[in-house]
Amino acid sequence: MAGQNQKTHKDEVMMRLRRIEGQVRGLQRLVETDTYCIDILTQVSATTRALQSFALQMLDEHMATCVSSAVAEGGEERDKKLKEASDAIARLVRS
Amino acid sequence: MAGQNQKTHKDEVMMRLRRIEGQVRGLQRLVETDTYCIDILTQVSATTRALQSFALQMLDEHMATCVSSAVAEGGEERDKKLKEASDAIARLVRS
Amino acid sequence: MAGQNQKTHKDEVMMRLRRIEGQVRGLQRLVETDTYCIDILTQVSATTRALQSFALQMLDEHMATCVSSAVAEGGEERDKKLKEASDAIARLVRS
Amino acid sequence: MAGQNQKTHKDEVMMRLRRIEGQVRGLQRLVETDTYCIDILTQVSATTRALQSFALQMLDEHMATCVSSAVAEGGEERDKKLKEASDAIARLVRS
Repeated sequence: MAGQNQKTHKDEVMMRLRRIEGQVRGLQRLVETDTYCIDILTQVSATTRALQSFALQMLDEHMATCVSSAVAEGGEERDKKLKEASDAIARLVRS
Repeated sequence: MAGQNQKTHKDEVMMRLRRIEGQVRGLQRLVETDTYCIDILTQVSATTRALQSFALQMLDEHMATCVSSAVAEGGEERDKKLKEASDAIARLVRS
Repeated sequence: MAGQNQKTHKDEVMMRLRRIEGQVRGLQRLVETDTYCIDILTQVSATTRALQSFALQMLDEHMATCVSSAVAEGGEERDKKLKEASDAIARLVRS
Repeated sequence: MAGQNQKTHKDEVMMRLRRIEGQVRGLQRLVETDTYCIDILTQVSATTRALQSFALQMLDEHMATCVSSAVAEGGEERDKKLKEASDAIARLVRS
């Protein structure tokens, strides 16, 4: 049952990434057909936002699972996981 | 000759987008093989940065061509193109 | 007359910056009174957005004046100003 | 002793915010003395980055203290704190 749920969840994550792949291919079509630069830029912004939302979802899940377990455990593992999450957040904020 | 150069340039832009598409597919492989969340997030940040660099290149070219012509022309077209570029920059900064 | 307008415009720009200074002082009061971290973070995000809006206004004005003049003039000055604006936009997008 | 450390830590946080206030006042001086727009924009980007670093520090501390305690406790408090942190991160990433 847990395996079933996990598969469904992975399918959902993969679907999100396939939609983003579709957006990048859409950008290629826009360039191929000489679409106006500004309209291409609008689509680039939309794709960037989709990637950011994906990252935020991944991060949420990571904090609710791996980080939470490590925090409950305590010790070095806790510090390591908190540091890792903090570095990943900094990369997201700065990119 | 100009057509030749333009084609080469379009090819180059397309190649950049295909590399970004490759990065998004790389993300799918990472999810498929249950890669550690933090490593996936690192790749998402790299992909977001690649998209931003692409957008900055498109914007540069747009300013050096369309916006510059409109500014040289003056009048309403100038104001329209400056407003469009400004809105596109705001979307990039905020996304 | 032009001097008058310019002064009014500078006053307006200064007022925006003083409001942002007020937001940063507000953050100090929140820290001083041990406000909950998450509420402080909400105010930091608001201050960051105010700074970005300020930057976008400065950039708009710069493009409508300095860059436009340089583009109308053409030559090296045009290329220099376009490059400068492009670099400033890249810094804003990446910060 | 703990109180001593806490005071020192709060002093340090306040000092960071005062430095950021100083940067915003520096921006006012630049405007007051008609500094070139591009140089003002460079300083705005530096100020924005300082605010983001401050936010990341606050967030780290919040996760290592409040969120960690709530996660160790479990139950509703855990979910509430994780949701709060996640929303704050999303605001930072998008601002």
